[in-house]
Order: sequence, then C-alpha cells, then structure tokens
Amino acid sequence: MEMITRQAIDQMERRYRANFINSVTGCKQVHLLGTVNEGGQANLAVVNSVFHVGANPALLGVVFRPARAENTSLANIRRTGEYTLNNILPAFYQQAHQASAAYPPEVSEFEACRLTPFYQESISAPFVAESSIQIGLKLYEELPLKANGTTIVIGEVTGIRLNAELIAEDGYVDQHTAGSISVAGLDSYFINEPLGRLPYAKG
Amino acid sequence: MEMITRQAIDQMERRYRANFINSVTGCKQVHLLGTVNEGGQANLAVVNSVFHVGANPALLGVVFRPARAENTSLANIRRTGEYTLNNILPAFYQQAHQASAAYPPEVSEFEACRLTPFYQESISAPFVAESSIQIGLKLYEELPLKANGTTIVIGEVTGIRLNAELIAEDGYVDQHTAGSISVAGLDSYFINEPLGRLPYAKG
Repeated sequence: MEMITRQAIDQMERRYRANFINSVTGCKQVHLLGTVNEGGQANLAVVNSVFHVGANPALLGVVFRPARAENTSLANIRRTGEYTLNNILPAFYQQAHQASAAYPPEVSEFEACRLTPFYQESISAPFVAESSIQIGLKLYEELPLKANGTTIVIGEVTGIRLNAELIAEDGYVDQHTAGSISVAGLDSYFINEPLGRLPYAKG
Repeated sequence: MEMITRQAIDQMERRYRANFINSVTGCKQVHLLGTVNEGGQANLAVVNSVFHVGANPALLGVVFRPARAENTSLANIRRTGEYTLNNILPAFYQQAHQASAAYPPEVSEFEACRLTPFYQESISAPFVAESSIQIGLKLYEELPLKANGTTIVIGEVTGIRLNAELIAEDGYVDQHTAGSISVAGLDSYFINEPLGRLPYAKG
C-alpha cells in the first residue's frame, strides 16, 4: 500500500486526476435528471452525486459543476423549480450514458438517446418512462460553494413513481429487484449484488 | 407502476419513511469515517453520503445529521480539522456496520468493532488498516442547511493510501478489485459487479 500525497495529486495530468478523484470513493448512485424549459423543451443529464439530506421532509441533494452557459439542467431547475431523478437499468445504460454528451440546449436528450419522456400532472418536469424508480422534486434550497463554483441543489420530494411491490414491509426499497445500477468515476457502470442486510447495530 | 404522493410520504410511520427515503435513490458509497479527539481517543462512524465536489483541488462532501451531543465525529472534525474516509470490504462489513451503534464518546469503535487504527505522520486522524482505499482529508468548508439542521462538511483530500496497482493508466481506480461495497438504506449491503465501461459520450 502506498501513500499518494496531496502534492502528487496536484501534479497529476488534468484528465487523469479527474478520473482518479471521481473513482477513488467507490460506486455511486447514478440517475438521469429530467427537466423542461418554459417552452416545453425537455432535457436529460446524467448525475452521480445524489445524496440523502433528510426523510421528513424528504430532501435530496445533487451537485452541479461550475455554472456554464450550456448547463441546461440547472437553468431549467431555476426557471421551473422542478426536476426528476430516474434510476438507470442495464437494459438502457448505454443510451443513458449518451445523455452525458454536450448537446446544445435546443436538442432533447430524450430524442438523441431514444428514451421516453413521461409527463404527469403533479410536475412539469419529465420522468424517464424506462426507469423503474422515478422521483419528482421541487427546488428547496440552492447552496453555492465558495470552493470551486460548484452549486449544491437541495430538492424536496414531491412524489415517487415505482412498482409498490418493490417496497418491503418496513419501507425498504429492493434495489436489486428494481435493477438500479451504479457508477464509479464518470463511465464505469456496475450491477449491485446483495451481500447482506444487517440488523440495527446496538452499542 | 404507482405514484407515491408527497402526502402519502408525509403520512408514513417515521421509521418506515426513513427506510423508504434512504433506500429509494439506489446503492450508495459507504465509508468508515475516522477521527480523533484532543486526548487521542479514536472514533469511527459509518457514512453513506460522500459525494464528489471537485478534482482540483480534490474536494469531497459528506452529510452529518442534525448536531447531537453524541455526534462525536463532527465534534472531532471541528476540533482537529482532520478526518479519514475508508472503504468497506465484504470481509469486515459486519464489524464496520457495528460502528453505526450509539457508543459513548469515551468508547473507541475501533476496539468495539475489532478494527485496526493506522496512524501516519501526515494526519492526526486514524485510517482503518483493513480498508483497501484510505482517504485523508482536512476540513475545508462547513455548510449548515436551513432545511433540517443537517451539516454538509466539505473536505480537501490531503493524501490517499491504496495499492498503486488499483490505478489504471488513465487514473481510474478499479473498485471491483479494490472490493469496495455499497449500501442501500442504512443496512443493506451490496457487492459491485462490473457491467461495462463506456467511452466519453459525444453529442
């Protein structure tokens, strides 16, 4: 085992360092984030930074890279206050990955990636019909990070579409049956195989 | 497929809702967070909310539940400015899970869970010797969330201990060989099986 020092990390080539730091923490949740602009133009983006903030009210966080003109998702969230997070399944992960390409704002990634938008009266943003877990959210709080121009968006869950059979008696959602995949770094996808569910730990 | 409405979520029993919201987003990265207090007393906690903030400088975020007297990890980070994040392997995931129990501050979870602290000159906080990827961090920025008393801690990577053979030519860290596991909800652990690594997506 070796120590990769801060100095060594700083001296890494830019893309190499991005791969290294993005993948070193493990396999992350990965979602398709759906939004729409005022004109009804739908947008999809791949995000791997969703984190749990609280259950009551149900709050989730997601990180956006420094604001760029083409960051359509964040602009749409600010305009409409709404977005969706949709899980990715092995059957369409290659199409989903394609949504990470830099398309101009007037292109719908749904069409470019051959995925199906699903609209529902409770929210303006589109769900991804192919996903087995579809989460609707509204913007709750925006946290700009001084560190590097990154923006953390906290969203409040407004509704969740899934097959109720995925929910166990105690509320736990069976991610194995749901088929959700994970990602390490920006491009390595993984299937999750159950290892074990453990009882509540007591001291 | 059914819509679980916001109203239905609000009306769920507290523990059921916590399980539901914690598990509905998918399989997350899970780490042992190591700290030490001024007296040299080591502490370990299980965290499932690590997220990527940036690669240059290398920044990671982690979420702490509303401040409680017994939140030893956050108190230690504030005192020393330092902490570690260590991956969890199948060989010791049951011991690691035990670190989520509510021990009093004077108890070291290393002893209670039969895990081995490893100290290194560059940082005061202990690494977990059993982990195959051990990340040292210093406190960079603390973000209190108005929403629910949660605190987001942003940390700057100060050094990473791992076997250099885990790093591919382009910087990508092989999480499958590293053996890192994931968690859904608070207690369901998963092994990550490679599905595929995809090329950079172009529009």
